[in-house]
Amino acid sequence: MSDEFILDNTDTEYDFQHKHLLGLSDYSREDILYILEQAQYFREILDRPVPKVPTLRDKTIVNLFYENSTRTRLSFELAQKRMGADVVNFSTGSSSVKKGESLKDTIRNISSMKIDMVVVRHESPGVPHFLTRCVDAAIINAGDGAHEHPTQALLDLFSMQRIYPELEEKHIAIIGDITHSRVVRSNILGLRKLGAKVTVCGPKTMMPAFVEELGAEVSYDIEETLGWCDIAMALRIQLERQDEGTELFPSIREYHQLFGITMEHLRKYPDVTIMHPGPVNRGVEMESRVADSDRSIILSQVTNGVAVRMAILYLLSGGTRV
Amino acid sequence: MSDEFILDNTDTEYDFQHKHLLGLSDYSREDILYILEQAQYFREILDRPVPKVPTLRDKTIVNLFYENSTRTRLSFELAQKRMGADVVNFSTGSSSVKKGESLKDTIRNISSMKIDMVVVRHESPGVPHFLTRCVDAAIINAGDGAHEHPTQALLDLFSMQRIYPELEEKHIAIIGDITHSRVVRSNILGLRKLGAKVTVCGPKTMMPAFVEELGAEVSYDIEETLGWCDIAMALRIQLERQDEGTELFPSIREYHQLFGITMEHLRKYPDVTIMHPGPVNRGVEMESRVADSDRSIILSQVTNGVAVRMAILYLLSGGTRV
Amino acid sequence: MSDEFILDNTDTEYDFQHKHLLGLSDYSREDILYILEQAQYFREILDRPVPKVPTLRDKTIVNLFYENSTRTRLSFELAQKRMGADVVNFSTGSSSVKKGESLKDTIRNISSMKIDMVVVRHESPGVPHFLTRCVDAAIINAGDGAHEHPTQALLDLFSMQRIYPELEEKHIAIIGDITHSRVVRSNILGLRKLGAKVTVCGPKTMMPAFVEELGAEVSYDIEETLGWCDIAMALRIQLERQDEGTELFPSIREYHQLFGITMEHLRKYPDVTIMHPGPVNRGVEMESRVADSDRSIILSQVTNGVAVRMAILYLLSGGTRV
Repeated sequence: MSDEFILDNTDTEYDFQHKHLLGLSDYSREDILYILEQAQYFREILDRPVPKVPTLRDKTIVNLFYENSTRTRLSFELAQKRMGADVVNFSTGSSSVKKGESLKDTIRNISSMKIDMVVVRHESPGVPHFLTRCVDAAIINAGDGAHEHPTQALLDLFSMQRIYPELEEKHIAIIGDITHSRVVRSNILGLRKLGAKVTVCGPKTMMPAFVEELGAEVSYDIEETLGWCDIAMALRIQLERQDEGTELFPSIREYHQLFGITMEHLRKYPDVTIMHPGPVNRGVEMESRVADSDRSIILSQVTNGVAVRMAILYLLSGGTRV
Repeated sequence: MSDEFILDNTDTEYDFQHKHLLGLSDYSREDILYILEQAQYFREILDRPVPKVPTLRDKTIVNLFYENSTRTRLSFELAQKRMGADVVNFSTGSSSVKKGESLKDTIRNISSMKIDMVVVRHESPGVPHFLTRCVDAAIINAGDGAHEHPTQALLDLFSMQRIYPELEEKHIAIIGDITHSRVVRSNILGLRKLGAKVTVCGPKTMMPAFVEELGAEVSYDIEETLGWCDIAMALRIQLERQDEGTELFPSIREYHQLFGITMEHLRKYPDVTIMHPGPVNRGVEMESRVADSDRSIILSQVTNGVAVRMAILYLLSGGTRV
Repeated sequence: MSDEFILDNTDTEYDFQHKHLLGLSDYSREDILYILEQAQYFREILDRPVPKVPTLRDKTIVNLFYENSTRTRLSFELAQKRMGADVVNFSTGSSSVKKGESLKDTIRNISSMKIDMVVVRHESPGVPHFLTRCVDAAIINAGDGAHEHPTQALLDLFSMQRIYPELEEKHIAIIGDITHSRVVRSNILGLRKLGAKVTVCGPKTMMPAFVEELGAEVSYDIEETLGWCDIAMALRIQLERQDEGTELFPSIREYHQLFGITMEHLRKYPDVTIMHPGPVNRGVEMESRVADSDRSIILSQVTNGVAVRMAILYLLSGGTRV
């Protein structure tokens, strides 16, 4: 390869011991900081003309997606292909694998084909953990219902760290439908481990009890929250829940009036950075111009996501240096 | 690689300046001739035992197909893989991306993952042009509704040129449902720029006004048309329009009687070459035996399509020589 | 590549002459033994840290699946990618290609894109044979209805051979819905050619006439069958046939009582090895614990399937040594 990248991080002596990435609950502060440090190498690679590094060229990875997730799947697939892995996609509705036995048979079958890593997205909490008891392959959780979505949290932490290299004591607000979010639990876990202060803000009807158990404060007032925070991460409102007959309270219109981030907010709180895991419902979680403003780092989050996933794949693959 | 191909076209000094391929309307006669010249190199590669040339090995390409199009997608994907690109497919119904904002967010997200080129198929005219204003990646139009489908037109031109190296003053007939064709506009544009004379022929109910504006003649008489032309390109009748409740006039049976190409036609007009963008509705646009006769170059068009797409990918990628 | 495998089987002098793998009916005993011998090389590769061998790096393969078949498609795709082939998947419902003409046009189009091999799964018997008359590419049958599924039979033979290197005179039982099985015909053909004795066992309502024509014995008594055999291969009951309104006789419950393999059977017949092509309906074809017992080689069959498919791909690709 004409412009092959030599991964030069031999000065790092941290002993990363994990085989799987199931969630941030069992990763230590040191583990997380080490991943973010590694991600920095890969982030630099992405800015090169040839954003490739063949550290996975001997690995076979299956992306096992039981729920549709174009962005996350695409981000993983690009990370894998740029690292030279053999990639096979396996997408399916979860209907055919509702029973645990069937899921177990599926993963044991796939694993028998000599697979090194499995990236799994499933609607049911705990599926990735269950898979680790079925097979030898490394398991990466790409979202298990409203439980954990650790690579999203890590890319959020990485994106914050590029603004505030030291997150200790920083004020991070998470705003939206906390109950149904796929990412909030992993984010609070990660942020707390790095010493950040976290406030979750949203309607009472969308506020679960576990956030306080994880060490986050709760607010029901967007003004109070924006006045307090350094970074405000808005969460996606699941509009499709309305289609399913669930009546949303507050309504979309009321939600935007009470919790939507506006250009007026940006003027009023000039130091707050805006994040969102995407895709943004423009006019709901925030005004469209907020998403496109220079205060938003939403698209940087997407780029950082590829780098963070490269770092995770690298570390869990045994960290073969090239 | 044991039989690596060295692209040796250094004698060509044409300065190809385009970043995107949105349509043939903004490509000059010289641009088109240059592409066809490059395609000749790639066509020769396809006849080798190892039809590979790794000119895109450092590139990442997303095939973004909002409409089902197995043949076009397969042709692009084979061209890309034979050139060593990292390829990611993203296929989806257009229902979820009806709104321009949403489409914009999708493409900006994908682009943020460091993509070099996007091949896009969408039902709405102008979508590829819109994407160029959203992202930095090179955009290739793989069909935007009934507007342009430039790679199909280029492969048609290339196929014609292999029969008549000089298309100037040649007589080309395009026969069928002109109104709903995905390919007719790009074909007329390209043919006129190369100096060919074009007659479109079909029922009045399938004849749009724009063809005369583009410099094509109109005929409603297949015998007159076949007596005049050197090459007759039949277009696919969209049978599925009937399923959608639109009544076709003329009916399929009437259409075949009035405009279908028959073996009798082949005998009567012994110098006419038959083309079709595929897939042929046998017994509608032409008798089945016409499609399989030695007067038909339909399958050559398919092979040429891969070569032309390799040339386009090569030129838009910056033309890195290997 | 750091740990590249050099295929060293130059001592084998068998002249393998087949261009396609349509079924085992036209493969000789010697052909089959030679494939199994080659598969042994690839099985060893799969146990290496880097299970790759780039013998297909100059080949393009299309996986053309007209029926959903995740496991078989995944097994072929992994085999192909580990051998370095360019792989393109083409999956579709068979509804759009019901007519032979349409199927012929599809395959001729794909083939015109310069494809070396086509792996095809279709619900209709004879489709792979039909394709050989349409195109030049090598055709591999990945299941044509209830006709042949030769790679499955070869992986079953390979799996048996690892237990009994000499299958001559061995007693093999095939138990289940013989009529609707995709694999039984190829298995009987292969087993008989290797000299094994075959008994098929199942309800009379699921027992077709052809098994005796192929040289298999018939039994309706599971105890008699298990007392006789060295290996018992249970077949999957197509539960989805019930959903389609076909009433199963016997019912699922009755089937399990009459023909399900139990832990008691394993104790009573201590030398019988259990196989199943997967996926197992636990509690139907066998008790769940039977599938997971050390008497079952079901997961080994899956691993062996990748190796056998690598061997087939290698031999049909012209057997280019690396």
